Amino acid sequence: MSDHHFELDKGVGPAGQAGWNLLAGEVPFPAAVLSESRIAHNLGWMRAFIETYRLHLAPHGKTTMAPRLFQRQIEAGAWGITVATSQQARVAAAHGVRRILIANQVVGDANIAAILDLLADPEQQVLCIVDSPDCVAMLGQACQARGVTLDVLIELAPEPDQPGYRTGVRDEAGLAKVLAALDQWQGSLRLAGVEFYEGVLPDEAQIRRFVRRAVAVTERLIGEGRFEGTPILSGAGSAWYDVVAEETAELAKTGRAQIVLRPGCYISHDDGLYRIAQEQILKRNPVAPTFGEALQPALRIWAVVQSLPDPARAVVAMGKRDVAFDAGMPRPATLFRKGRDEKPAAAPTHWEVTGMMDQHAYLTIAPGDDIAVGDIIAFDISHPCLTFDKWRKLLVVGDDYRCIEVIDTFF
Amino acid sequence: MSDHHFELDKGVGPAGQAGWNLLAGEVPFPAAVLSESRIAHNLGWMRAFIETYRLHLAPHGKTTMAPRLFQRQIEAGAWGITVATSQQARVAAAHGVRRILIANQVVGDANIAAILDLLADPEQQVLCIVDSPDCVAMLGQACQARGVTLDVLIELAPEPDQPGYRTGVRDEAGLAKVLAALDQWQGSLRLAGVEFYEGVLPDEAQIRRFVRRAVAVTERLIGEGRFEGTPILSGAGSAWYDVVAEETAELAKTGRAQIVLRPGCYISHDDGLYRIAQEQILKRNPVAPTFGEALQPALRIWAVVQSLPDPARAVVAMGKRDVAFDAGMPRPATLFRKGRDEKPAAAPTHWEVTGMMDQHAYLTIAPGDDIAVGDIIAFDISHPCLTFDKWRKLLVVGDDYRCIEVIDTFF
Repeated sequence: MSDHHFELDKGVGPAGQAGWNLLAGEVPFPAAVLSESRIAHNLGWMRAFIETYRLHLAPHGKTTMAPRLFQRQIEAGAWGITVATSQQARVAAAHGVRRILIANQVVGDANIAAILDLLADPEQQVLCIVDSPDCVAMLGQACQARGVTLDVLIELAPEPDQPGYRTGVRDEAGLAKVLAALDQWQGSLRLAGVEFYEGVLPDEAQIRRFVRRAVAVTERLIGEGRFEGTPILSGAGSAWYDVVAEETAELAKTGRAQIVLRPGCYISHDDGLYRIAQEQILKRNPVAPTFGEALQPALRIWAVVQSLPDPARAVVAMGKRDVAFDAGMPRPATLFRKGRDEKPAAAPTHWEVTGMMDQHAYLTIAPGDDIAVGDIIAFDISHPCLTFDKWRKLLVVGDDYRCIEVIDTFF
Repeated sequence: MSDHHFELDKGVGPAGQAGWNLLAGEVPFPAAVLSESRIAHNLGWMRAFIETYRLHLAPHGKTTMAPRLFQRQIEAGAWGITVATSQQARVAAAHGVRRILIANQVVGDANIAAILDLLADPEQQVLCIVDSPDCVAMLGQACQARGVTLDVLIELAPEPDQPGYRTGVRDEAGLAKVLAALDQWQGSLRLAGVEFYEGVLPDEAQIRRFVRRAVAVTERLIGEGRFEGTPILSGAGSAWYDVVAEETAELAKTGRAQIVLRPGCYISHDDGLYRIAQEQILKRNPVAPTFGEALQPALRIWAVVQSLPDPARAVVAMGKRDVAFDAGMPRPATLFRKGRDEKPAAAPTHWEVTGMMDQHAYLTIAPGDDIAVGDIIAFDISHPCLTFDKWRKLLVVGDDYRCIEVIDTFF
């Protein structure tokens, strides 16, 4: 019998198996591997960025859904944790996150009930988003029936003449209707601020216009006495947080509103979608390049070559169930052969994943390349959100390739 | 406080919450919902098909990774369960599946150790695939070190002049090398048969040629006395199992080999990829249309309209984390409005999901359509494998929309 006691869920476990060596055949592959030093670097980088602008950070927890990482983010100065759904809010609350921003409309009777359950704990703060009278009425009725008060933010969408929208009120008429609906539910719903998501817009100019409107609307609602205390203005995904920071910093300085940014991907970063976005941030933002090394890709999928059916192709035991594929394929970062190599070396740059099935990846190689069945390849990824959600366990490893911690996800 | 006790994982739970009514606001959405009557129909349909050809069925368990459904498949006559990875094999074994076909190469020291652990139970049968001398050597060494014997099948790939391949030996030279390698590990590895996967080929003619070769190779290896007992010949995914059945039925009749087919998607079927594949099967196969109603899509994702930002768009609280998107978008099947409707009615046929983000779907509607925030839409899906794997809990419901059972997945 082996000494290994693997969990039945994909990924290794249970927590406490620290010491496992990725290079010694002690870990089943594929595995989702986080670099401790890079995670720590990224946490520090974003903290420095946010503090420079004197803003608040509520990292989007939907990215990792790993409460252990929420805890690290809070220890690194985060104001709270953002989530997208009632289930995610419950996970965060159950793991001790006391300030939860649900940056989404909460719909569905059972979903609404689930978040109102959280308010039974007087220490628990929950905010969510409204953008229509129907949405307001459903929340208001549920709160009134329970005798509780829920904090809500009004979501703004880009205006009808802007290219790109998702949820949110798109014009003054929509805003007025939501405000009127909120007036009907005083005591049940408390207007706590304004929220927006700029990532659906195509370029910097459109985004600046949108954020300026959000600032102006917030200022106006403050002037109208719509808020009891200091309101929140919250925006920013992982691609444009610098622009949002620049456009909201002045309001932040006045102390009249709390600005809460919500990037989620910075903790793991990536070598695709967000590497490209970050390169743009480093070019256009004066502050970002001043913190030394930029964000580092901290999440890799380790997998094993299973077959060499052709001189130009290796098949790797990793598939669409292990790694995101909607924003570019994973890229071979390092290669390791047990018995030959002391540690992983850079993978040949011409190797390329050119297709994936559910459980297989096609790696295009050149005839004659030194590659063998059993070789271990670590892949950089593009789009952390759709990679994290493939895993129930994540390995946090040191620079010595030894496992420091196994952490759980709750998707 | 609510009476609901939702699990923290996405989907509802715990098991035992039978009786929940999908239409009464008792279930948080989105939810993955299986129709009990359709599941039962599909299980019976495939049983009838397999029995007509006198073949064996080892449904691919990777599709659902729900041991409760493995059990249903075995109760409906399945010979065993197929899986793709060592983790999946462990899940199946831990839930009582006594005959497990790993239709894949097992690579990685810890992965190999995990499957050899299973052999400690003398009642446990495990078969896996080899296609290279390196693969054989790694398994052989591990078996020898433990003093156990593992059953392996040689995988055949389409030949080099055929358009499409994945893993497997592609020519006689490759086959000879694997056979020679197996000769080195007698006592540790036992050749139990031949395996192939035809789904990478583009058309029926290519597939028939490939399956005929697999039959011929099996016959030849039988003639050469390569097998101890009756060998297994295994192939067939969910799109071409009829062609594989036709081409292997004659060998099955001789009793000289056991033919094991491995479709996995039939249990849930779908309204996309496999609806189209099944239409082709019904056209080309003489037996399939004789079992009454064809396979029925049994898995739907229920989700709620969260916003109506535009007369031509509804945003639904369902995203790439809830449903497959690699083989067509989910399609609105039914619409239900609580307080107005007694039960769901067919959704307008012009409604179409035209985009998804991680947690949102864009539903294109026509201006003036009767749709409201809070409406509940059940979506048919395309590609069950990449839908099931988004869920830790599945609801099995009766035709009265009441939950019969909540079942766990182990991805």
